[in-house]
Amino acid sequence: MTKDELISEIRRKQSFLCIGLDSDIEKIPVHLLKSDDPVFEFNKQIIDATSHLCIAYKPNLAFYESQGIKGWQSLSKTIDYLRNNYPEIFTIADAKRGDIGNTSLQYAKAFLDDKKGFGFDAITVAPYMGSDSVKPFLQYAGKWAIVLALTSNKGAEDFQLQILENNRKLFEEVLRTTASWGSNDNTMFVVGATQAPMLAEIRKIIPDHFLLVPGIGAQGGSLAEVIRYGLNSDVGLIINASRSIIYASDNEGFADEARKEAEEIQQEMKTFIDKM
Amino acid sequence: MTKDELISEIRRKQSFLCIGLDSDIEKIPVHLLKSDDPVFEFNKQIIDATSHLCIAYKPNLAFYESQGIKGWQSLSKTIDYLRNNYPEIFTIADAKRGDIGNTSLQYAKAFLDDKKGFGFDAITVAPYMGSDSVKPFLQYAGKWAIVLALTSNKGAEDFQLQILENNRKLFEEVLRTTASWGSNDNTMFVVGATQAPMLAEIRKIIPDHFLLVPGIGAQGGSLAEVIRYGLNSDVGLIINASRSIIYASDNEGFADEARKEAEEIQQEMKTFIDKM
Repeated sequence: MTKDELISEIRRKQSFLCIGLDSDIEKIPVHLLKSDDPVFEFNKQIIDATSHLCIAYKPNLAFYESQGIKGWQSLSKTIDYLRNNYPEIFTIADAKRGDIGNTSLQYAKAFLDDKKGFGFDAITVAPYMGSDSVKPFLQYAGKWAIVLALTSNKGAEDFQLQILENNRKLFEEVLRTTASWGSNDNTMFVVGATQAPMLAEIRKIIPDHFLLVPGIGAQGGSLAEVIRYGLNSDVGLIINASRSIIYASDNEGFADEARKEAEEIQQEMKTFIDKM
Repeated sequence: MTKDELISEIRRKQSFLCIGLDSDIEKIPVHLLKSDDPVFEFNKQIIDATSHLCIAYKPNLAFYESQGIKGWQSLSKTIDYLRNNYPEIFTIADAKRGDIGNTSLQYAKAFLDDKKGFGFDAITVAPYMGSDSVKPFLQYAGKWAIVLALTSNKGAEDFQLQILENNRKLFEEVLRTTASWGSNDNTMFVVGATQAPMLAEIRKIIPDHFLLVPGIGAQGGSLAEVIRYGLNSDVGLIINASRSIIYASDNEGFADEARKEAEEIQQEMKTFIDKM
């Protein structure tokens, strides 16, 4: 999906919400465990109930890999279901991959290639190994690398906030350097909602890039703060919520409860888009 | 596998060689493509021909994930084959994972858990997201997190060699900080063979940790240099070669050619162990 198509979907739906499919077999409603593929059934019902309120879904690979081959099948069915029924949805493989060039190329194929792989629109990428670990993800037309910059967790302090001898923080160096490898048509950055006040500084470095912002809801970040500091003229934000939406309820009405949670966020987003 | 068991295997086999199973369906001998699971058949023959010469195998996850569910099955059969037939072998999932705590916990389960996951002895871990992204991999007794410190690729220069305001290089900070989260009984570090002269400095920071050293062979690192600067009294090195061994030949005698390549390295390793 191109940047223009993404912006057009955001304006049409008046939403820049991404729903994280951190679908944990141990947390989904018990009544689903009777079905052939409980995780896919859960995802399908969440998607059908919320697709009009969000512009992206983000399966978190760890929750599928921890189920072995069954998990891989659930993931495969989920992405096929999205591509076949909701082709306007932006799909993100939250995989945090990154390795030497020939290996990153294989990961890019696995997640981004429409014919040989899952065909996601985007994949999250870890920057620690540098240019040849990131560039292979930039080679597919209309696909995106979403590079970790400043994450939402406590551990972000350990290295990302370290100050370099050039006086920049490490995550700022990652933003500047990584942005130069691609363009704002194929690169986005992860910036955690828990880091909202830093978004003003980040927007000085990368005014035009889209940001994927996790951490509202269960992790405690504020939607209004993120919008205040992070919005640009293209909107420029994809804000993710996972657990607060998908686990809003664990009974038979879970999908409807998820819809209500998503709707509340979408309505708040709408008020900001209306003002633009 | 505990550190003592690993050292004992190194001394018994007079080898600290790890063979990387970067098994690419497009590079394995053509005659194998007739079999039900060509990648597993390739791995099986490589393992049977070389297991007496190495102490570890390291499947590179990207090459399995790029084959979708079939790849996941090949990987599953490979690790089961190793555990059932060569229980003395140290197994490393080269996955370079790392995410917020609850997600890293799922990756740890997927790769390290003997009952619920693959049951690898170790997994490679990316440090960028900090403590809560690494610690979940340290919770399994007898299992290991192998944290990226200074990698073998060109891109290592982009961030790992950046100098912090405390005058340390980023990878040195990663070594110091990450080493404090666990012990040399559950943490190893990746240091590329192409960085051999830096090993003397690294040994000052972490004298007792095992290092996983990729980059000899196809990537051009020197075995003698790595040993010269990196060896400690426990040996303390696991040196990996992938492509130079497994793709030594692409004809029907490929496994025997792989054995010869592995034997050459093992013989060189033996001369250093003899001198200890």
